[in-house]
Amino acid sequence: MSSSKHFTPLARPHAFFTADESAQYFECGYSCDHAILLVLDSRKIFFTDSRYTTEAKEYLARGTTLVESANLLESMIATLKKERVSTLSFDPLQVCVQEYQTLLAKLPKCRLEPLPNFHQQLRIIKTDEQVALIAKSQKLNKKAYKHFATMIERLDNPTELYLHALARQALEQDGSYALSFNPILSINANAAKPHALPCQDRLSDGDLLLFDAGIKYKRYCSDRTRTACFTQGRIHFSKKQKFRDTKLQKIYDTVRKAQESAITNLRAGMSGKHIDALAREVIDKAGFGKYFSHSTGHGIGLDIHELPRISAKSSMIIEDGMVFSIEPGIYLPNLYGVRIEDLVVVRNGRAEVL
Amino acid sequence: MSSSKHFTPLARPHAFFTADESAQYFECGYSCDHAILLVLDSRKIFFTDSRYTTEAKEYLARGTTLVESANLLESMIATLKKERVSTLSFDPLQVCVQEYQTLLAKLPKCRLEPLPNFHQQLRIIKTDEQVALIAKSQKLNKKAYKHFATMIERLDNPTELYLHALARQALEQDGSYALSFNPILSINANAAKPHALPCQDRLSDGDLLLFDAGIKYKRYCSDRTRTACFTQGRIHFSKKQKFRDTKLQKIYDTVRKAQESAITNLRAGMSGKHIDALAREVIDKAGFGKYFSHSTGHGIGLDIHELPRISAKSSMIIEDGMVFSIEPGIYLPNLYGVRIEDLVVVRNGRAEVL
Repeated sequence: MSSSKHFTPLARPHAFFTADESAQYFECGYSCDHAILLVLDSRKIFFTDSRYTTEAKEYLARGTTLVESANLLESMIATLKKERVSTLSFDPLQVCVQEYQTLLAKLPKCRLEPLPNFHQQLRIIKTDEQVALIAKSQKLNKKAYKHFATMIERLDNPTELYLHALARQALEQDGSYALSFNPILSINANAAKPHALPCQDRLSDGDLLLFDAGIKYKRYCSDRTRTACFTQGRIHFSKKQKFRDTKLQKIYDTVRKAQESAITNLRAGMSGKHIDALAREVIDKAGFGKYFSHSTGHGIGLDIHELPRISAKSSMIIEDGMVFSIEPGIYLPNLYGVRIEDLVVVRNGRAEVL
Repeated sequence: MSSSKHFTPLARPHAFFTADESAQYFECGYSCDHAILLVLDSRKIFFTDSRYTTEAKEYLARGTTLVESANLLESMIATLKKERVSTLSFDPLQVCVQEYQTLLAKLPKCRLEPLPNFHQQLRIIKTDEQVALIAKSQKLNKKAYKHFATMIERLDNPTELYLHALARQALEQDGSYALSFNPILSINANAAKPHALPCQDRLSDGDLLLFDAGIKYKRYCSDRTRTACFTQGRIHFSKKQKFRDTKLQKIYDTVRKAQESAITNLRAGMSGKHIDALAREVIDKAGFGKYFSHSTGHGIGLDIHELPRISAKSSMIIEDGMVFSIEPGIYLPNLYGVRIEDLVVVRNGRAEVL
């Protein structure tokens, strides 16, 4: 039943540079929004400006060289020339045309090797320690959902906007945790727009509330979605939900079945599109295929969206140690939307929910 | 006394594309994080995926054509071919190498014209209406500072992290306003790092608190910094501050004088570096030049950092209608940092504080 294909990891490039904060943090324990990390085999050089050097000194992993510079790219070019680097890898999805053309012009002897998403590929198999950090992040996230539910129950017809602000407070816990993304919170028809912005609509008895949120714990992201019914002043974010509208209940049950089917049936060795199909075929069979307009899931780690992709186009082979979301949804325009999302890690060939 | 040079505005390109949300919002009243706006003279075409089309239909300005697509770049390329566009402008600071190479390969008959920061250049002279929106944003921001001061006064030795969370609540006002950036809030020596992250240090009597924050009002940003003394349970964010430490008071007075000198003496027709020097020379003369490690200011509008740059390297001529910050600072490592920031608009050749 399960495919026997194997995932082939990307070989680590000998020389690469990155301005991506997740990649920097992964490599040297610190990042900031104006820095370049240059990796030359086992050597790591962190270029940043004077605003960040005090903090960089404190947090950079031992062995990383800190270079203060008012022009990061020029400083890196000088180092590359001095070291006579002959091939430099980079992510063509992250490097802008202007920087690329400067590198081409100033490093005529260096081959620039584009490797799309190379650092996410290097991070795609999580260690047990990294899985534990994501699991802890999700545990704190679930706790915030519970707290948020009690907060909602104290309110009288709150607006989406107010609930959104309150949700962020529940998630951040007095500044203890950063958000892994701006949460999505929407009532009834607004939930039919998978990425709706909160508005002045009010939560009333019998309403559907879709809530998609996550935090960061030691930089590792969590992500979870629940669709819940607010009834008689009560709400809870477990998967067991009862809606008064029978069509809505049918849609909810279909999404839940699709999500559970993908989680139960996925196996290491399957491709991303195979797993996507596990969820999609349940929704197709129930007749709602055209209303499931996004992919089934995405990898998660230091970035909220990482590899692997669990989509109809993804031929990437899924392997033990990969962590990703399973989040099918059905969206009926102007009526309501339902999405259910959990994170899984692949272990011993099967999915374990985090 | 004032230079007689004039600012030369950038001519609007005939055909350009942008994925930048501020540029999209400016051009067609809506933006999202997965869209391309293509402008062909007076025609505007907005490409986005199915997650955003419901909202796009609602908010896109009349006359903008909406195209739903699962591959935005391919859809844009098809339109460019059909319309036989011969020159397409783009921002090489915003377009990645991968997209650029796809365009080069698939549009052999179209010249790609890199124009760094072109859309910020198109927005650099603000209309009265835009200035009014920034002014309103800053007014709401100031109100939040006042409210935050009263919140602080109710607390007992709060940590930076807790104050940071509270500050965001004060700024967001129950979700009514988005932040224009993650605020900077730091106590004493932490304030010596201009972009410090909040930590577990606690606010105690006699401490210095640096607070740099802004919100968005109808998408327009505000930005303001105050350095205040917390004394006998009281704090206020006006410019008049009294510190017990005489050296600190001298530094504070120097920064204040530098900021006021730049605001009072700047004139339309001066270059960005001329205005930077107005602030810098006050700090240099007081002997703290090497501790003023960043530029004097930055333009602001839909983006928190826009043109013009007010820095030692900026030869851009300042003109009526430009809006920017004036924010000199002095940072003594391991001791304290002081920064004072206001926004100004140039009107009738002089700076007016917003």
